[in-house]
Amino acid sequence: MKALHSHRSIRRYKSTPIDESLLNEILQAGIRASTTGNMQVYSIIVTKSQEVKQQLLPCHFNQQMVVEAPVVLTFCADFNRFNKWCGQRKAEPGYDNFISFFTGAIDALLVAQNVCIAAEENGLGICYLGTTTYTADRIVEVLKLPKGVVPITTVVMGYPDESPELTDRLPLAGVVHHEVYQDYSEGDIDQIYMNKESLQLTKKLLEENGKETLAQIFTDIRYTRADNLLFSKVFLKTIEQQGFMNNK
Amino acid sequence: MKALHSHRSIRRYKSTPIDESLLNEILQAGIRASTTGNMQVYSIIVTKSQEVKQQLLPCHFNQQMVVEAPVVLTFCADFNRFNKWCGQRKAEPGYDNFISFFTGAIDALLVAQNVCIAAEENGLGICYLGTTTYTADRIVEVLKLPKGVVPITTVVMGYPDESPELTDRLPLAGVVHHEVYQDYSEGDIDQIYMNKESLQLTKKLLEENGKETLAQIFTDIRYTRADNLLFSKVFLKTIEQQGFMNNK
Repeated sequence: MKALHSHRSIRRYKSTPIDESLLNEILQAGIRASTTGNMQVYSIIVTKSQEVKQQLLPCHFNQQMVVEAPVVLTFCADFNRFNKWCGQRKAEPGYDNFISFFTGAIDALLVAQNVCIAAEENGLGICYLGTTTYTADRIVEVLKLPKGVVPITTVVMGYPDESPELTDRLPLAGVVHHEVYQDYSEGDIDQIYMNKESLQLTKKLLEENGKETLAQIFTDIRYTRADNLLFSKVFLKTIEQQGFMNNK
Repeated sequence: MKALHSHRSIRRYKSTPIDESLLNEILQAGIRASTTGNMQVYSIIVTKSQEVKQQLLPCHFNQQMVVEAPVVLTFCADFNRFNKWCGQRKAEPGYDNFISFFTGAIDALLVAQNVCIAAEENGLGICYLGTTTYTADRIVEVLKLPKGVVPITTVVMGYPDESPELTDRLPLAGVVHHEVYQDYSEGDIDQIYMNKESLQLTKKLLEENGKETLAQIFTDIRYTRADNLLFSKVFLKTIEQQGFMNNK
């Protein structure tokens, strides 16, 4: 469990390329992940060329690691391949609906996490980009994703050029419930967030942003309602355009 | 990468319980997974009692491993805890929309896969249950999930009482694309599915089900349009009821 426990998101990379055979080994380990009914309704787009990475860059809010990391992996829900197979085998696919999209998303995310762990076990660093769903419509264009394919998450990968501290996590008891959900009292919430709020990092953030509480940094700056509404619209529209909203 | 490569879904379990401290270690490793903005917008419900497992059983189409495995883990997208925290910290949360739901789902699935790998590294077996989204409305009731919480996937866990063969996977080249998506020709599809279609297991399935092609077993029996439409409706309704569809 060493690789799991030593995970850090890496945002600065050496220019050293990833050996082709190592990348293949990592992807091979990745696709051993559980997949719904063994359908493997996902695809992995491996982008290395500066040309395509430059096009992806604004989709990921110009985070430089997109062009600096040697490899960018876009994990997609993909029923296109499966639907084509059905079409060639006298079978009528019924996968143009929301649950099928979500099945593909689950598949894509389990593979993504396997790939990340395999990469870290081999001395590589990774960082997930949460921006993929926010600009899914533009990523569809850049990566030429056909109907039946929706981008779910992106991982940059390469040899780390930094060694950041381990990030804090809430206490385990704060995210685990026994038997059924045990809802939180005001006191529970205070206790769960106490350590996070007392960190030096938090104090620095409050000063830098002129905010009174850490929660306000999330609601007012990092993950605002206005952004969330825009991104919800973009992502739902993309899911529909890619053919997954025929729910009747 | 040994644990990744030796993954099999385990459907038969010994009654041996999982030691409490081992389970905690596994969950601790799990929550080291990447999480959006370090918000940890997920919860893990650990169910061990026969009483609650019996209630979950029909939600998972009466698959006996739900009651036979010592531990059932339900991974949920969870903004309830985060929203409560915001409310206690003079912050106005804007997380009652689809993108926030999906953010929580990503978080939950990355943690789930980390937990599974940690379990397998410790000699335990796991199986994902795809039924969670299909009966999300009933799972909400059984596990008493408040607004802001949606069940995403379920994992049963315990000591294996079987040692199944490794499951087949499509060739890596069939699920990986270079630079941008390379759409499949008819010949590509034939080649990608060739090995799978020639397996002894496939021949057995065709005979048992009286079908001409493997694809028909998926479209006509396992993942039918009628089921998908029903499950899409249930899951979308649950997402809405749990407060994640205020997208305007």
